[in-house]
Amino acid sequence: MKELRVGMLGFGTVARGVASLLRQNGRVIAERCGIELRLTRISTRNPNKTAAMNLDGIAVDADVDALVEDPTIDCVVELIGGLDPAERLVTTALNRGKHVVTANKALIAERGMALFSVAHSNNKDLCFEASVAGAVPIVKAIRESLAANRIESIHGVLNGTCNYILTEMRERKLSFAQTLAEAQEKGYAEADPSFDIDGIDTAHKLAILAAIAWSMPPDFGGIHIEGIRHITDSDIAWANEMGYRIKLLAIAKHRPEGLELRVQPTLVPLGTMVSQVEGVFNAIFVRGDHAGITMYHGRGAGEHPTASAVVADLMDLGRNLRAGLSSTRVPPLSVANDHLHPIPIHGMDHLECEYYLRLAILDRPGVLAEITAILARHGISIDAIHQKGGATLSEAVSLVIVTHQCREMDLQTSLAVLEGLETVRGKPVVIRMESGLN
Amino acid sequence: MKELRVGMLGFGTVARGVASLLRQNGRVIAERCGIELRLTRISTRNPNKTAAMNLDGIAVDADVDALVEDPTIDCVVELIGGLDPAERLVTTALNRGKHVVTANKALIAERGMALFSVAHSNNKDLCFEASVAGAVPIVKAIRESLAANRIESIHGVLNGTCNYILTEMRERKLSFAQTLAEAQEKGYAEADPSFDIDGIDTAHKLAILAAIAWSMPPDFGGIHIEGIRHITDSDIAWANEMGYRIKLLAIAKHRPEGLELRVQPTLVPLGTMVSQVEGVFNAIFVRGDHAGITMYHGRGAGEHPTASAVVADLMDLGRNLRAGLSSTRVPPLSVANDHLHPIPIHGMDHLECEYYLRLAILDRPGVLAEITAILARHGISIDAIHQKGGATLSEAVSLVIVTHQCREMDLQTSLAVLEGLETVRGKPVVIRMESGLN
Repeated sequence: MKELRVGMLGFGTVARGVASLLRQNGRVIAERCGIELRLTRISTRNPNKTAAMNLDGIAVDADVDALVEDPTIDCVVELIGGLDPAERLVTTALNRGKHVVTANKALIAERGMALFSVAHSNNKDLCFEASVAGAVPIVKAIRESLAANRIESIHGVLNGTCNYILTEMRERKLSFAQTLAEAQEKGYAEADPSFDIDGIDTAHKLAILAAIAWSMPPDFGGIHIEGIRHITDSDIAWANEMGYRIKLLAIAKHRPEGLELRVQPTLVPLGTMVSQVEGVFNAIFVRGDHAGITMYHGRGAGEHPTASAVVADLMDLGRNLRAGLSSTRVPPLSVANDHLHPIPIHGMDHLECEYYLRLAILDRPGVLAEITAILARHGISIDAIHQKGGATLSEAVSLVIVTHQCREMDLQTSLAVLEGLETVRGKPVVIRMESGLN
Repeated sequence: MKELRVGMLGFGTVARGVASLLRQNGRVIAERCGIELRLTRISTRNPNKTAAMNLDGIAVDADVDALVEDPTIDCVVELIGGLDPAERLVTTALNRGKHVVTANKALIAERGMALFSVAHSNNKDLCFEASVAGAVPIVKAIRESLAANRIESIHGVLNGTCNYILTEMRERKLSFAQTLAEAQEKGYAEADPSFDIDGIDTAHKLAILAAIAWSMPPDFGGIHIEGIRHITDSDIAWANEMGYRIKLLAIAKHRPEGLELRVQPTLVPLGTMVSQVEGVFNAIFVRGDHAGITMYHGRGAGEHPTASAVVADLMDLGRNLRAGLSSTRVPPLSVANDHLHPIPIHGMDHLECEYYLRLAILDRPGVLAEITAILARHGISIDAIHQKGGATLSEAVSLVIVTHQCREMDLQTSLAVLEGLETVRGKPVVIRMESGLN
């Protein structure tokens, strides 16, 4: 039986998952591929970490640069993460005629174009199913299964850490800081959690999915990004009371005027499927002009689910090898690299949607009249307004306003005016709403 | 640019969808494939049906036998349905060196093995993504994206007609007969609805998915099949009251003792994702040993969604052609045909689950004691029991019993005894419950 010789860079959580998956399911994998996937070498900064695992027959060392030059290796699995040295190593591996499989979303979202071009000139594949949504096969679904469709929109929950935090805050009525601290203790959030909770990780993934869906170079810089740091337990409770959940959503909508690309906390109505995505799960909704909306749901991270996606890519390469493929079969972003075209971004100013606003106000006579007059003057009409009583006159109380659809620009202008009022304390909380989602 | 010349058999709903999709999205499809998919010929029993559509440049005739012999055609799309003449035509097309794409679940479930063998000996592909769950790419997901996993279970809603009927019965409190008649009027159910409502269609699809998941010849005959004819609005109302939905589920579980394969109405707890699959939608849940549960949801039928899946298969073939593939890349059932092995079926007698029972009883002194004693004698313990009062002594009333987990064999034996009681009228309604699903 032929074999595909695999070298792995890194030995963190996912890499351990890959090594154990190849060992556990090696026989069925070989039967399904028609060739054997053989992990022959692991290079990691700290080779001692591998001691706990049975890696018989696998060379282990600290020389990542030597691994990508190793002429006995057919395919490099990059699981180091980050841009440096991953970018350099992946480039070298491709230039040395090796396929590369990666779970590195930052690398694909920020350096993808250069790397795809290197892959193409070497007639090698750079595979990245594992970079978005763990075990959920969303890259292949958009690139292959929905390939006959013009994609109209994509939205979803792409970061398990944020979704876990928001779910816990709601279920246990905890503050953001408390929940984050717990998530860090349990290993669901990093020591430096900013990539996750500030929406960067979600934006990397959105850049990748949009690039495949609309045949464009990944446009990480074009994404409007808001994280969840400013979401309070009180916003979550208000949302709940009004029949909504708060989710950190990645949203891409293809409009005649351009592409809307945003990552933001969003109020979604209870009863929609996206509102039911809980804890560490991910879900992606893709609307195609013929398929309608299809949805994909599963574990978005973790040792075994992500390993499942990495090895699926390896098996694709194995099946190509076995079938005697003479060139790359599916371009990474759906069309040939030289057919990719940037798409103009539909700026946030022109966005129209409904908004949830929470203002800390001093409960004095006339304050409501003043606030609603300012909103009206900017063309913003109010769908619902709530104020909880009980405070003394000198204490700020929460005023929650849900607007009808209005323009982001008008909303931001009116907020600037509101912030200037003596009766409005601190910065108003603004969360966009999406009622048209599924 | 190279082209893949496509001939289409049939011109029903899905075929119209394929023709219009290829026309509408031809340019992006060609860009994504790197080759053009050109529909050159349609053969259908009634060519007049095509008059309503602009089919410029496409030959239309009634000679289905000539189409599969046509040497100018590279790939045949079979959308006639049923076994005869589809089986003969597909066989001939493969023997004439053409690839075949089909949406025909009966053909694959009941004649798949013979056809895959013909395809293999001609080194051609027989593709069938569209045969299960319309636009939802579940065939590719199991065969490629989850290929590194040992699959533990599959369950799902695979028939939109049944799910539509059950949803309408619940929401509008209508009888089965009324809802079916309405569904037929709206075109959601066939004039002869038995394939759908008796569970045959669902079983065809389950046979296909199980075959891919467990590398076995499709085992349609091994599936225990129950439809939804016997479900009453009163069962739906009872289920609702107790916190359940009734769904027609396809269930496959891989156990050490063998494979459980069943199609059955099922009580699923509210709040689970499967309970939220409504109307004509389909959803499939697959549990892999590494991926965990992933879920796929979308439109399971209809002109455009099914066409999306048919053309995705054509594009796979187009991408193979463009890449210069010298042989079949992915075996239809995941492993080479000669590696497929039948799996022993875990018989229904040995099943253990919870049950919903509804008996029409005469409300006389001692009747409850008698019934519960019979159940106890067979080792069946009761989780909940409900009886609605109000009837006269001579009228039958509904007694609803929810059991703890027990053996199917014991349940059936006790039911036979219960049916013999003078106080039990008619046949008890039995619906299995699944609380461990997601």
